[in-house]
Amino acid sequence: MLNAQNEQPYIGAQVFIEPGQSPEQIDSWFRILDENGMTVCRIRMFEEYMKKPDGSWDFSLFDQAFKAADKYHIKVFATLFPATVNNSVGGFKFPESEEHLRQIATYIEKTVSHFKTFQSLYGWVLMNEPGTGGDIPQTEFTKQQFEAWKKKQVKPEYNSKNYTLLVNFDRKKFLLDYNTWYLNWIEKDVRKQDTESVIHVNNHQIFENIAEYDFPAWRPFLTSLGASAHPSWHFGYFDRSQYTMALAANCEIIRSGAGELPFWITELQGGNNTYSGKKGFCPTAEEITQWLWTGIGAGVQGIIFWCLNPRAIGEEAGEWALLDFQNNPTDRTQAIRKVTEKIASNRQFFSQAKPIESPISILYIRESLWAEGLVQQKDDDGSNYEGRHIGGVIKSAVSFFEILAENGIKSNLKEIDEFDWKQNDYTGKCIILANQVSVPSRYWKPLADFVQKGGLLIVEGLTAFYDENMLSLNSAGFPLRELFGGELSEVQCTPGDFDMTVSGIKMPAHLWKGYIHNLTGTPLGVENDHITAIENNCGKGKVVWIPSLIGLGAERSKDKSPLSDFLRQKLQEQIRQLPFIFKSQQDGVIMQTLQSGKKYMTIIINKSGQTRNIELTNQSLKPEEILLPENSVNVSEKNINILPEETLVVRWE
Amino acid sequence: MLNAQNEQPYIGAQVFIEPGQSPEQIDSWFRILDENGMTVCRIRMFEEYMKKPDGSWDFSLFDQAFKAADKYHIKVFATLFPATVNNSVGGFKFPESEEHLRQIATYIEKTVSHFKTFQSLYGWVLMNEPGTGGDIPQTEFTKQQFEAWKKKQVKPEYNSKNYTLLVNFDRKKFLLDYNTWYLNWIEKDVRKQDTESVIHVNNHQIFENIAEYDFPAWRPFLTSLGASAHPSWHFGYFDRSQYTMALAANCEIIRSGAGELPFWITELQGGNNTYSGKKGFCPTAEEITQWLWTGIGAGVQGIIFWCLNPRAIGEEAGEWALLDFQNNPTDRTQAIRKVTEKIASNRQFFSQAKPIESPISILYIRESLWAEGLVQQKDDDGSNYEGRHIGGVIKSAVSFFEILAENGIKSNLKEIDEFDWKQNDYTGKCIILANQVSVPSRYWKPLADFVQKGGLLIVEGLTAFYDENMLSLNSAGFPLRELFGGELSEVQCTPGDFDMTVSGIKMPAHLWKGYIHNLTGTPLGVENDHITAIENNCGKGKVVWIPSLIGLGAERSKDKSPLSDFLRQKLQEQIRQLPFIFKSQQDGVIMQTLQSGKKYMTIIINKSGQTRNIELTNQSLKPEEILLPENSVNVSEKNINILPEETLVVRWE
Amino acid sequence: MLNAQNEQPYIGAQVFIEPGQSPEQIDSWFRILDENGMTVCRIRMFEEYMKKPDGSWDFSLFDQAFKAADKYHIKVFATLFPATVNNSVGGFKFPESEEHLRQIATYIEKTVSHFKTFQSLYGWVLMNEPGTGGDIPQTEFTKQQFEAWKKKQVKPEYNSKNYTLLVNFDRKKFLLDYNTWYLNWIEKDVRKQDTESVIHVNNHQIFENIAEYDFPAWRPFLTSLGASAHPSWHFGYFDRSQYTMALAANCEIIRSGAGELPFWITELQGGNNTYSGKKGFCPTAEEITQWLWTGIGAGVQGIIFWCLNPRAIGEEAGEWALLDFQNNPTDRTQAIRKVTEKIASNRQFFSQAKPIESPISILYIRESLWAEGLVQQKDDDGSNYEGRHIGGVIKSAVSFFEILAENGIKSNLKEIDEFDWKQNDYTGKCIILANQVSVPSRYWKPLADFVQKGGLLIVEGLTAFYDENMLSLNSAGFPLRELFGGELSEVQCTPGDFDMTVSGIKMPAHLWKGYIHNLTGTPLGVENDHITAIENNCGKGKVVWIPSLIGLGAERSKDKSPLSDFLRQKLQEQIRQLPFIFKSQQDGVIMQTLQSGKKYMTIIINKSGQTRNIELTNQSLKPEEILLPENSVNVSEKNINILPEETLVVRWE
Repeated sequence: MLNAQNEQPYIGAQVFIEPGQSPEQIDSWFRILDENGMTVCRIRMFEEYMKKPDGSWDFSLFDQAFKAADKYHIKVFATLFPATVNNSVGGFKFPESEEHLRQIATYIEKTVSHFKTFQSLYGWVLMNEPGTGGDIPQTEFTKQQFEAWKKKQVKPEYNSKNYTLLVNFDRKKFLLDYNTWYLNWIEKDVRKQDTESVIHVNNHQIFENIAEYDFPAWRPFLTSLGASAHPSWHFGYFDRSQYTMALAANCEIIRSGAGELPFWITELQGGNNTYSGKKGFCPTAEEITQWLWTGIGAGVQGIIFWCLNPRAIGEEAGEWALLDFQNNPTDRTQAIRKVTEKIASNRQFFSQAKPIESPISILYIRESLWAEGLVQQKDDDGSNYEGRHIGGVIKSAVSFFEILAENGIKSNLKEIDEFDWKQNDYTGKCIILANQVSVPSRYWKPLADFVQKGGLLIVEGLTAFYDENMLSLNSAGFPLRELFGGELSEVQCTPGDFDMTVSGIKMPAHLWKGYIHNLTGTPLGVENDHITAIENNCGKGKVVWIPSLIGLGAERSKDKSPLSDFLRQKLQEQIRQLPFIFKSQQDGVIMQTLQSGKKYMTIIINKSGQTRNIELTNQSLKPEEILLPENSVNVSEKNINILPEETLVVRWE
Repeated sequence: MLNAQNEQPYIGAQVFIEPGQSPEQIDSWFRILDENGMTVCRIRMFEEYMKKPDGSWDFSLFDQAFKAADKYHIKVFATLFPATVNNSVGGFKFPESEEHLRQIATYIEKTVSHFKTFQSLYGWVLMNEPGTGGDIPQTEFTKQQFEAWKKKQVKPEYNSKNYTLLVNFDRKKFLLDYNTWYLNWIEKDVRKQDTESVIHVNNHQIFENIAEYDFPAWRPFLTSLGASAHPSWHFGYFDRSQYTMALAANCEIIRSGAGELPFWITELQGGNNTYSGKKGFCPTAEEITQWLWTGIGAGVQGIIFWCLNPRAIGEEAGEWALLDFQNNPTDRTQAIRKVTEKIASNRQFFSQAKPIESPISILYIRESLWAEGLVQQKDDDGSNYEGRHIGGVIKSAVSFFEILAENGIKSNLKEIDEFDWKQNDYTGKCIILANQVSVPSRYWKPLADFVQKGGLLIVEGLTAFYDENMLSLNSAGFPLRELFGGELSEVQCTPGDFDMTVSGIKMPAHLWKGYIHNLTGTPLGVENDHITAIENNCGKGKVVWIPSLIGLGAERSKDKSPLSDFLRQKLQEQIRQLPFIFKSQQDGVIMQTLQSGKKYMTIIINKSGQTRNIELTNQSLKPEEILLPENSVNVSEKNINILPEETLVVRWE
Repeated sequence: MLNAQNEQPYIGAQVFIEPGQSPEQIDSWFRILDENGMTVCRIRMFEEYMKKPDGSWDFSLFDQAFKAADKYHIKVFATLFPATVNNSVGGFKFPESEEHLRQIATYIEKTVSHFKTFQSLYGWVLMNEPGTGGDIPQTEFTKQQFEAWKKKQVKPEYNSKNYTLLVNFDRKKFLLDYNTWYLNWIEKDVRKQDTESVIHVNNHQIFENIAEYDFPAWRPFLTSLGASAHPSWHFGYFDRSQYTMALAANCEIIRSGAGELPFWITELQGGNNTYSGKKGFCPTAEEITQWLWTGIGAGVQGIIFWCLNPRAIGEEAGEWALLDFQNNPTDRTQAIRKVTEKIASNRQFFSQAKPIESPISILYIRESLWAEGLVQQKDDDGSNYEGRHIGGVIKSAVSFFEILAENGIKSNLKEIDEFDWKQNDYTGKCIILANQVSVPSRYWKPLADFVQKGGLLIVEGLTAFYDENMLSLNSAGFPLRELFGGELSEVQCTPGDFDMTVSGIKMPAHLWKGYIHNLTGTPLGVENDHITAIENNCGKGKVVWIPSLIGLGAERSKDKSPLSDFLRQKLQEQIRQLPFIFKSQQDGVIMQTLQSGKKYMTIIINKSGQTRNIELTNQSLKPEEILLPENSVNVSEKNINILPEETLVVRWE
């Protein structure tokens, strides 16, 4: 394994290898990577292109690629890709039979033992994008695994107060474990041949597939975790001007999943969609720049574009590439080169760079997504019901992420299990639970402890409406009443959007208006004798509770400043811990911050469509270098000026 | 059985009983019913919560509820609910096998014999909402029943003039009989144990399921018939401001189905939708008041809200309730209490109250709905084709109901079989057939007799386009030509809406414009030499025929006054029979009238969003008491003033 | 067979024969045909109405029809219609088993041998509308045929440069051959009984089904080819004001498919849709006139309306007819009579009339439609992506047809195989390939030869993006680089519409913007250093290449004049070959021209909704007779005036 530390963040691209290509072509792609400062690539190791009909193996096509990688010192992430039926573009996600499993094992043995000998082999991607879209496959093999899994399950102690359990999330729970089992099975087979290389897997369409994965369970057998982030396929909850923000959120989700491990953007859209892509488009050079710096600002170990050269035949042929059809770099490739140059010239900074620690964690809860998926109607009741459609749970969480990012405030985006519940003091820390409709019983005490130990808990929407068995927690003695300082009194479904006033701030809300039966809290909002928000001291900490959809309300109305003002009011203690933020929320502009020793690097991206002059709360830092835009004079200590689509990168000390 | 007569209309709510509830909770719900003047409840008798895995029966959970009902003198409608697979929220509609039928019989025997002993047991609801959505189940059992049914069918005498029959409505006809058979089967099993209690069934989503039921065939084994009317699930053909009107129409349909039996609103939405409900919302207190008085004005024996307490677990958990999560009455419950108080203080009036007899009957025809369902396209051709989508038939009928109600004119809404065809004189009576596309041969003579004997028949849209076998009646010698005074000459499909002039009144019409080949009628409308409407004397009566969609035209354009003017012109004789009506049509305001001896009670509800001052044609009645709004001074003999959302209830003498 | 030549174009209608009709009715329909100048009819020969349950055959019902046809000298196209399951309205398209095939043979034998003896029998329609909608049936019989077919296929020489073939169009290729085989099988069975009559087949919904047919392979066993053209079912890609243009395009497609054979509009919507028709409507008399003259202008041998009398029972009962329910001619029938009179009074002209030869051929390519069907997403990404939805390929071709027709410029619309590639000189000829995304290898040399020999090739959109195996031609050494004068450099997907400038003309484009790597061409458009269009001389000819969707751009924006101006600039040599055209493009007005000896007849139809005064480029022709509108004074040599919805027919010499 190469010494990675000194070169990261790595930038690279997928080289798509398929029969029909000439050795010259293959060589040229690795040369082009090198010429543009790209030091890493990914190659899909098609079994179809190595195994011959007579059962023998011919690695020569891929050998050419690895030799070229050796020649140009490009690290190779090799994606294991056993033979698929019907030439599936994405590959299968689970074995179909014991026999299939044996075939996969043979493929792994042959492939790994052969290619591990190349100097350029950096690591193995266990599988391409292990998400199924939410359900388990309908095969006999999976059925058997499911039955075996069910036999091993122990009845949980918590039984929803003896209410008869009417819904069942076993398929979802099994999928979590099944994913983990199969990835681990692959890893073990890889490790039989190669004990040293990196082991990686990349997760796609994260906002929709997020509840399928148990990332912490993967950490023991991975060396890094990655994201597949193609806006045209994966960011359908957002519009194009939000893709940068969505990528930042995607990075936070994967960073949190990775824990102490490094994380990557293992696939990032590099080129044009023609027929493929759900909302196809061709990224601009500016977007490529924005996305790269967004990943860097989130602390990636590396970013790999999909893809350098287009696949030549079949679905997606001629699409997605960084090169044009003459093998020339496009303006997108040029944009990449400018970034790799800046990385190289800031090698010292990056050698120690990490994203600043944020005291604010927005948590999402797997069971909330499961519950939403189970109870949702057909999503055909129109935009007035967006909040209860599939996506309402995760969009609520991301709306808080977006509003904070538009204040220059970094926040974590974590599955609730990934949060560190074992600290002794949470003073200055904040957790936000935005419309996490199901809060399982095992988190009730940790949440209370968090607040007791000084934490600030902000609760929004229908958070904690259900437990993990879809018991209506408010119907059966609300278990969080002491923590929240009250109980839900009623929810009023109001299709569309409406205004409400919290802490004297009038703000838009969506669909659900919750009324609180207050016990010990201080009312923050009252409407016709109904309390709509409270603040409750509990131990050393505090809970702020607004049981209405104010995140989605802000998002849908494009009127985010009221909620922003409210959050800044509540988060004063947290904001103080950050080097600096914007003086006020900036629609469509986000900031990320890296720290390296005593130096900082801020990355500000303007998707607002307008030139923006932004004041900073900066007390003590001075701009040391303006990396981007080149020759800029638009940065002072307390103020920056940023054009539309511009990415402004400044190193401070 | 309690002496019902003196207390009706009963008001009550479903008490949802499930394991996990404490005796104190259960007791509290019956106490709350009592405190709010509610004297009746409904309980779903889950077999799952009574039958133990070892085959023994434990009724203790439900015993608690019945004891509490005894204690607070609450009448209980017990809904039979045999075990379902997958905890179906709605329950199954037909047995799946002979074995299943035996299991159901055992359940009925055990349940009825046990609970009939409670004083509070008022009656049995044979099944929850027996509608399948139009088709017969795909089970082996049903298949056998269907085959047996087919063998018993006698070939009808009428054979559509020897045309080869190409379409077949056997599944629809069988479903009618199958519903009746199974309900009767349940009733017989109940009666083996309990010969005295009330026997009831409630029909839901009536505007869509209406063609599945043969209500007259049910009357011999029922003691009352009921409606499930949850606007968020069931009134999808209408918008929220029409829900009150739709509920009035729903009541008329059930009232007609019940015949001489009393009818109920057995389920009425009482609370909030969160994830459930197709067009979810939380009713306002004003809506609760409107709906209650609408039911009362239609002559219900009782109204039961769904539900007092929310179910606690699974789908719909925490939704639909009249109580908040602290078990406190919401403003909706308070609205109910005000109504129960008014009923109590008008006990004398209500002891003899009946809806006034209306001389106008809007008839719908089962075969018209079947034909529409068979020929309709995929409903994906846009709003310009609404009239031919599924729903066009029943929406046409309801549009006439609405326009009359907005004149304060009561009308009946009946399946054509439910009309009394055996009178000797129909002078002063009117039948409206609005876009009843299929008129079976067995009604041709009764319709002619009705007119011959003095009746007024108003025919609209494509009424009588087909016979019961989808023979185009106009293609093969129109059998109603003497009655109508002509035949259809052509239909012109004109997507969207257009204007036409009838009796000098320009009015909007939709989609279909019919031209008449006039024989003996007097033209009412002419367009480019084509006659678009005629009036034909026949015997002692008259037919008014407009073969275009003027009902839907009025409805879609929100321009109802022209059609209203036309109808008032034609219905002068009928209007004279009513105590009084509005002097002119009032958009969004409907009136219903009860009579009790020589006294009348009018219920006027304003959904127009505006304050309205309405003149009445009242000749002789004087306001005796203004029940609602309290302390109102807005009523005089010839004039009332009504605020938006207001329900105005006046007793006259 | 009657001497047809002297009477054509024939006009007629389907007479719908079914049990229940009286001999008088049947006689009346043939009389009415005769009275209105209609000399041909079509009759569907239902096996169900001839074969008795005991296996005997009773032809009496249809005998009545043929006798009446004999009596009134009406030629009969008899449509073979073997028994269908479930009384399918359209009939089956392929046999379901060997046994079924034998039954069909018996039906053909009985039917043909019996009815061929009638003098009125003109010919046999082998099947009603042989399109399946794109896929092969799921029957065992078809499966066997498919397997047998696959065994016979020879591996093609061209192998996409050794790239592994990932997609497979075998089902599409088989369907082509399977259609041909089955039609030929029927024909052979017919010919066993009747060696003389006309053999015909009619193809429906052509814009969607077009890639299923191999018309040239049908020519040997047909005597004419026909179109089913019901706008309400078949012209869903267009709006009502475009139906005339769409019918003209449909005629060109069928005319090209027919080759030297005559072609018909075998079914043309004659009457009202009630429940049937995807976008139902009732044609106006003006539309009937427009459609008839459009067909005549395209050079039809005959036009048969669907239908004279409505079917009486079942689906579509009472719909589609030219007669009203009293058997009287409607204004649509009167419109037909006026046309038949004009044909009769111009018998001499029509005896030699042919559509003028156009030097411009718009070619569509079957493989392009197949590729689009394979790669397209679910079409749920909204109107901004219309160009890549199914239909993008054919709509692009038709957009050029429409723009030319609005200039009065006739163009051919041909499958690429139907073009005559064997001429020695293409000087003055033009081929347009509009967004034909797949150009199979077998056309590369013919296309180059066409240009080398003097032809003008206009290439638009993503034409030649793929080969026949979906190899991205630009990724693997563009084979048409010398012809086109360059290669595609990049495509930029830009959802929605945008402007681009070509030859100094700013024009709207849609979705895809292509950049060219220019080698030998002259740039026609440049944008930010990217070449967007070039012109390349090659041999004696020239290629004009704009790799963006300018056809759909013009169509979607309703701003067609810029593209029109550009085309007129490029097509000067072609335009000179036409007698005359409009001086400028006329939105919504199209012209067709017939030639008969030295005389011409122009048919101009105004669907623009406005009166139009149009200048002509006419140099030498003088108006000899204004056939339509009668008594018009609105025509001079260089100028015509035309009212909205008017059809203007002029004979020139």
